[in-house]
Amino acid sequence: MNKKLTYKAAILIIGNEILSGRTQDTNTSTLATWLNSIGVKVDEVRIIPDIEEKIVATLNLLRSRCDYVFTTGGIGPTHDDITAQSVAKAFGIKYEIQKQAYKILEAYYKPGEFNEGRQKMVWMPQNASLILNPTSGAPGFYIENVFCLPGVPSILKSMLGGLTNLIVGGEPILSLTISLRTVESEIASSLTKIQNENQDVEIGSYPFFQAGKLGVSIVIRSEDQSKIDNCNLQILNFVKEKNIEVVDR
Amino acid sequence: MNKKLTYKAAILIIGNEILSGRTQDTNTSTLATWLNSIGVKVDEVRIIPDIEEKIVATLNLLRSRCDYVFTTGGIGPTHDDITAQSVAKAFGIKYEIQKQAYKILEAYYKPGEFNEGRQKMVWMPQNASLILNPTSGAPGFYIENVFCLPGVPSILKSMLGGLTNLIVGGEPILSLTISLRTVESEIASSLTKIQNENQDVEIGSYPFFQAGKLGVSIVIRSEDQSKIDNCNLQILNFVKEKNIEVVDR
Repeated sequence: MNKKLTYKAAILIIGNEILSGRTQDTNTSTLATWLNSIGVKVDEVRIIPDIEEKIVATLNLLRSRCDYVFTTGGIGPTHDDITAQSVAKAFGIKYEIQKQAYKILEAYYKPGEFNEGRQKMVWMPQNASLILNPTSGAPGFYIENVFCLPGVPSILKSMLGGLTNLIVGGEPILSLTISLRTVESEIASSLTKIQNENQDVEIGSYPFFQAGKLGVSIVIRSEDQSKIDNCNLQILNFVKEKNIEVVDR
Repeated sequence: MNKKLTYKAAILIIGNEILSGRTQDTNTSTLATWLNSIGVKVDEVRIIPDIEEKIVATLNLLRSRCDYVFTTGGIGPTHDDITAQSVAKAFGIKYEIQKQAYKILEAYYKPGEFNEGRQKMVWMPQNASLILNPTSGAPGFYIENVFCLPGVPSILKSMLGGLTNLIVGGEPILSLTISLRTVESEIASSLTKIQNENQDVEIGSYPFFQAGKLGVSIVIRSEDQSKIDNCNLQILNFVKEKNIEVVDR
């Protein structure tokens, strides 16, 4: 199979607790960092509530638009966990007991503990394949290009290792950060010139406060290390000319 | 003016740094918590890259669908700050110097320091009104139901106070959390029963790990304190019956 130049993913965060502000989402950053390392770019993230019709519509849009969709949340045992049934509906397929998952959880729990609540976690869309969970037993699943992961950050993280060989990506997306003791307006025009001359490299500029002092981090991103190095040199040139201090960060 | 029962907002996070995983978004949680306190529910969050056509299309969709849209990011002085020009394009109006903003920044900087880069920050959609910035001078702006805020979390936070009187909301959305030393599957069926009997109350169940122990936080949300109290009583009933420990969290 010929690799494409760019692989695009969407992340779909499912959960009222993120939309209410109660819980700070950290899964986006975890997933994006991991995806970049295997050559997949995150095109878009959406955070939506635990409402079936919203999940179905959003999922069908994103899976037609991107190479991969990763969902987080809503695969536990309680009434507000409706991701698996919604994914089945989105694909127009049955929602049923996944036999391999049943066996895994039956063996995972002590005799008598694999109760009704826990059994809900083995219901999945027909023909779903499992994403194994080394932390707490209950697996995630995938079907076609949709990968369904739990919302608890530590469990999600522990499942990515098992996913890596399922995802075809391009070249890893590399990045270099240069942090400067300056403000954005001092470097804006020099940076614009470099971005214009290097249009296939992504150059971002991000102000920060550290130990009471202002600074700017410039982030250069590309699949090609030589292009990053070239931009880096051009940036260090104007930094020297303007007598700006480079700082650790 | 008669208040509606429900006011809905969308949050549009603009920035490659979030999609690359480099920066952890915290503005969603800040905005959602503040909006809930003034009676506005967050319906959806989208995180998109610094690409004009994406910003224009997403903004036009969200502003037609929600009472309010809050954007964060992309209003600084560098080449990757394209929110203001994209908002102008979305509304089909001119992108021009906002005179009040010009005066504010001219006075804010020392003579000679209001340079070309900084002057970019006073370009806004025609007839935009300002959202004052008590932290670092450069204001945000709003036009119709779209409110544009900066991406730096501390600056964004400092600007919300000045926004509160511009937003009409419903009753504040109240919440109560009960944390239990149990696992979700032990309480799933009892909780489903209570949710079914109280369909206009939002009941969420969130597992946690704390000091090496498993627990579940149940979050009850409603505009009506008596409905929350009623659900709380029903939950405490089954907690007592099942001999589950209530824990601080």
